[in-house]
Amino acid sequence: MALKAQVLYDFTAEPGNNELTVKEGETVTITNQNIGGGWIEAQNSRGEVGLVPEDYIEFSKALPSFPGAGTSGPALSVGNVASPDLSFFDAYAPTSAPAQNQVDTGGLSPQPDTPDTPVSPYLSSPDEASNGNDPWSVWNTDPSGGSNNNWASNPEGTQTGKNAPDPWGSHGHPQAYQGPGAEDDEWDDDWDDMKSTGGYVESESGDSGAMQRGGAHATSMKISLNKFPGFSKSGPELYLLCKQFAKGKDKLPIYTGEVGPVWSYPESQLDCIVADPKKGSKMYGLKSYIEYQITPSNTNRPVNHRYKHFDWLYERLLDKFGSAIPIPSLPDKQVTGRFEEEFIKMRMERLQGWMTRMCRHPVVSSSEVFQLFLTYKDEKDWKMGKRKAEKDETVGVMIFSTIEPEAPDLDLIEVEQKCDQFSRFTKAMDDGVKEILTVGHEHWKRCTGPLPKEYQRIGKAFQNLSTVFTSSGYQGESTLTDALTAAGKTYEDIAQMVAEQPKKDLHFLMETNNEYKGLLGCFPDTIGVHKAAIDKVKEADKLVATSKIAPQDKVTMGKRASTMSYALQAEMNHFHSNRIYDYNRVMQLYLEEQVKFYETIAAKLRQAHSQFTTM
Amino acid sequence: MALKAQVLYDFTAEPGNNELTVKEGETVTITNQNIGGGWIEAQNSRGEVGLVPEDYIEFSKALPSFPGAGTSGPALSVGNVASPDLSFFDAYAPTSAPAQNQVDTGGLSPQPDTPDTPVSPYLSSPDEASNGNDPWSVWNTDPSGGSNNNWASNPEGTQTGKNAPDPWGSHGHPQAYQGPGAEDDEWDDDWDDMKSTGGYVESESGDSGAMQRGGAHATSMKISLNKFPGFSKSGPELYLLCKQFAKGKDKLPIYTGEVGPVWSYPESQLDCIVADPKKGSKMYGLKSYIEYQITPSNTNRPVNHRYKHFDWLYERLLDKFGSAIPIPSLPDKQVTGRFEEEFIKMRMERLQGWMTRMCRHPVVSSSEVFQLFLTYKDEKDWKMGKRKAEKDETVGVMIFSTIEPEAPDLDLIEVEQKCDQFSRFTKAMDDGVKEILTVGHEHWKRCTGPLPKEYQRIGKAFQNLSTVFTSSGYQGESTLTDALTAAGKTYEDIAQMVAEQPKKDLHFLMETNNEYKGLLGCFPDTIGVHKAAIDKVKEADKLVATSKIAPQDKVTMGKRASTMSYALQAEMNHFHSNRIYDYNRVMQLYLEEQVKFYETIAAKLRQAHSQFTTM
Repeated sequence: MALKAQVLYDFTAEPGNNELTVKEGETVTITNQNIGGGWIEAQNSRGEVGLVPEDYIEFSKALPSFPGAGTSGPALSVGNVASPDLSFFDAYAPTSAPAQNQVDTGGLSPQPDTPDTPVSPYLSSPDEASNGNDPWSVWNTDPSGGSNNNWASNPEGTQTGKNAPDPWGSHGHPQAYQGPGAEDDEWDDDWDDMKSTGGYVESESGDSGAMQRGGAHATSMKISLNKFPGFSKSGPELYLLCKQFAKGKDKLPIYTGEVGPVWSYPESQLDCIVADPKKGSKMYGLKSYIEYQITPSNTNRPVNHRYKHFDWLYERLLDKFGSAIPIPSLPDKQVTGRFEEEFIKMRMERLQGWMTRMCRHPVVSSSEVFQLFLTYKDEKDWKMGKRKAEKDETVGVMIFSTIEPEAPDLDLIEVEQKCDQFSRFTKAMDDGVKEILTVGHEHWKRCTGPLPKEYQRIGKAFQNLSTVFTSSGYQGESTLTDALTAAGKTYEDIAQMVAEQPKKDLHFLMETNNEYKGLLGCFPDTIGVHKAAIDKVKEADKLVATSKIAPQDKVTMGKRASTMSYALQAEMNHFHSNRIYDYNRVMQLYLEEQVKFYETIAAKLRQAHSQFTTM
Repeated sequence: MALKAQVLYDFTAEPGNNELTVKEGETVTITNQNIGGGWIEAQNSRGEVGLVPEDYIEFSKALPSFPGAGTSGPALSVGNVASPDLSFFDAYAPTSAPAQNQVDTGGLSPQPDTPDTPVSPYLSSPDEASNGNDPWSVWNTDPSGGSNNNWASNPEGTQTGKNAPDPWGSHGHPQAYQGPGAEDDEWDDDWDDMKSTGGYVESESGDSGAMQRGGAHATSMKISLNKFPGFSKSGPELYLLCKQFAKGKDKLPIYTGEVGPVWSYPESQLDCIVADPKKGSKMYGLKSYIEYQITPSNTNRPVNHRYKHFDWLYERLLDKFGSAIPIPSLPDKQVTGRFEEEFIKMRMERLQGWMTRMCRHPVVSSSEVFQLFLTYKDEKDWKMGKRKAEKDETVGVMIFSTIEPEAPDLDLIEVEQKCDQFSRFTKAMDDGVKEILTVGHEHWKRCTGPLPKEYQRIGKAFQNLSTVFTSSGYQGESTLTDALTAAGKTYEDIAQMVAEQPKKDLHFLMETNNEYKGLLGCFPDTIGVHKAAIDKVKEADKLVATSKIAPQDKVTMGKRASTMSYALQAEMNHFHSNRIYDYNRVMQLYLEEQVKFYETIAAKLRQAHSQFTTM
């Protein structure tokens, strides 16, 4: 089967990784589609064979249909275009060849790069909020489905998604798009990664899903819901109408605190440190990966995990809690440049941010799967835990069956009011956060581009004038020329300070807002489940009248909607409390660094000033 | 004589001044060319009659030649295009209609204006140094002439000058262009301005010469030299070979100071204050003008002068001292917008700068004409003084005849070395100064344009997020939202500070460098006279051999070249000493304001920072 495919983007092979350099527009022959890990093996016209990221190629419509289509698995994701995320890399290693190649993707790249324009790792185009990729615009309050963005009404799945994907935007909206491809057959082969795949083993790119964050692999709770036979694809009926909850499950109490319904918080907050990224390799060095050390505060015993393990955890948390708790997606997967020091540092920082947020969540952090991830003892322990977690049936909307609010039931009007209020708030905050990202991105560009260049030119101009003055032959010149040179050097120093400052302050402001953008991107789905439940309860009278449900069922549905509302309120209160802390903290940090920045400049200029004299 | 002319630029009449609004490309009929003051009377196609600036119209080549051509006087300057200088006005009153009109001159304007780009009052295009308008490129070391830029080889005069005149550039190079038109027949009519000119009197625009600074009117010393019959157009022979100097002239001694030859400095330095600009009017308010009050430190008695009187003084100083002392030209003349407050303020500031520089010069400040300007007692005194000054014959190179160095004669090699050294230095400094003006101009644009906009957007983004947070309904929100609003307002404050800062510091740096650019622009001519003298002395042997001069004349020429060299050295030492003072002072001022600026920002941010809390 000499299957042909078209190369969508330039890809530059990393040396020693059995990769194949391909050019946009090139036609390659697929020699092995079962490599896994987001890779396929391809042969170019010169007969060279090597690995190419699946995302980088597309099977031409004119070509015979892909034999793997219709089956689940990584092969399905071939041709599902999630524009490779290299923006961050662009920003930090602008001269790197792969990043340069990426710029060549032209119209497909959401980054408005011009060759001389520095880019920031934060992309947030001003019109993002209004394009079709905004998850806020795809809320489907019709429980019977019908939205194009709903996986159920889009059987092709892999063809949906973003036309001009925003690498950071997609990070933010993991649940915005639901396509199949979740059942990655590679997972059971996790620990030792020694599966034979035609001589190649999976790469650090790990699972194809992670490679396509925001694309086909977003294993949202909807996928999980689908596991239950007879479950309507579109809503929370499974929970609302469930006859009997599974017993013996860990219960999730909701208390009434000062601010209203709150989760049960542990006495001491769990924390962890993600550190010490180490390059490992497999298959005698044929493929490499990065392993991180995670040290939780409860055991203080480090465990090691690769990105793919984080991703596995993310999938489990999304399956289990996504209906009630927004589970932000992991930092984006990146194919090229993934061994670059700056990239590893950035990913680690973002994994740390993600882990910290999960640790801070009382429900998530106390969950069995999360504890497994942080405290597994050995390989056997991990494998057993994994299997168990994957068999967990209290996923999707069924999480609500474990929630026990310690308060009187709410009536539907209250439930709806709360839901609408959260919906408005999260939408408004999403806009606010995106605005900050947009202006921050612009500011980043200016601070690392034209502004320092200008200060440098000012500095040079002073120094050049000083050089001219030195040549005057006039005595008593040196005080002025020394001072002028010093002033010039000061402006050169300022240029450097200006260029480096964003990494010291704007970076964290951007990271925090980026994290919130991701978190807020989860709310449309989370709130959508609630809206669907409310609609279902509203339908209850009709269902009773048509004998679809018993009158008692209607009462149960109301009670359960109330439970869902308590869960949502507890979660919103958790969100608010964290938000207030996070924004206070990041603004403190930002302003502190800004103060230092301006004070340092003032001090330098004061020093430069002192050298001039008119006496 | 229904003389037709083409309108070169849009001109908007100022109300009440009998002016006529005309549009670029319009054809008008000249109804009176003898208005004077830089104005002509014209009639448009609708029969409306009014005054139009001469510079704004041009007699089409296809039309019959202008009857006034070939005679001296203001009419000659009609059609001599010096692009009206509105750059400053653009910067300070960007919404003003005349300024807007000016932008329409398109390619003729050297200002690279785009509608949204703020402009600074300092224009210095990066390629300025390399274009044909650079006076440094027109040095003519061939005493027989031949340079296109030399008035003698350019009988048409009025057609020379700058193709794309730089309003500030022309300011800087008054001697770069020499054309006729100096004998402004209007001068004798100065004091009361009551000359009958067909019902119109001269306007504040004063003499046409001033209107065309850098154009036809630069009455350089070469014009003056030409007054002497038999004087070779190209050089200093008049002085070198003069048989008998006029007696009884004030002598200008040169002493040997620590730094070498120096002028004789007065015990107390003269100073003056230019202040209190008042709008006056004549002819029952038909025409208006601005009068400034000048108070010299020696009498402390204020005198009043209009711009045209300054210009008269400038012409006299240039005539008298220009061969030995660079006399910087006055701030540019401006036709439209000349009654705008900001313009008046700026002109006054520049007149002050010019006067201060003249006062500081020991030779200039002690001259009769300068003292007349500052201390005339009444109209009669002024008129008599004027007549006397205009009849002064110790002008041009003859100024050297009054110079008496108190030191042994220099040999020609020394003279030439000194001259070359000053030539190199002033050229190099001219480049350095232009570089500062270029980067300063860029910086001005950024600081008043995109940068404050960005800070404002950052401020707005914080405030918008604060508004969103306020809507959360979560209690304990107000500390954060108040702090976030305050932080946002702080960035709006910073935006305003950034936009206003250039007027507080960069302005003075630019003004000083602009002044030096003007001063340095005089050196090519000043040094040119010296080079010509050196060349003449080198020729002396040949002249003796061919009996053109007597052997004794050769000795005299050598001595006189030595005197010229002492004068040049004294002047350079004066220049250096002033330069060192001026640059120390302006850098102190600049850095002091910069320090304040950054400290104020730091303090504001510190205050904003204090409002956030993570407790």
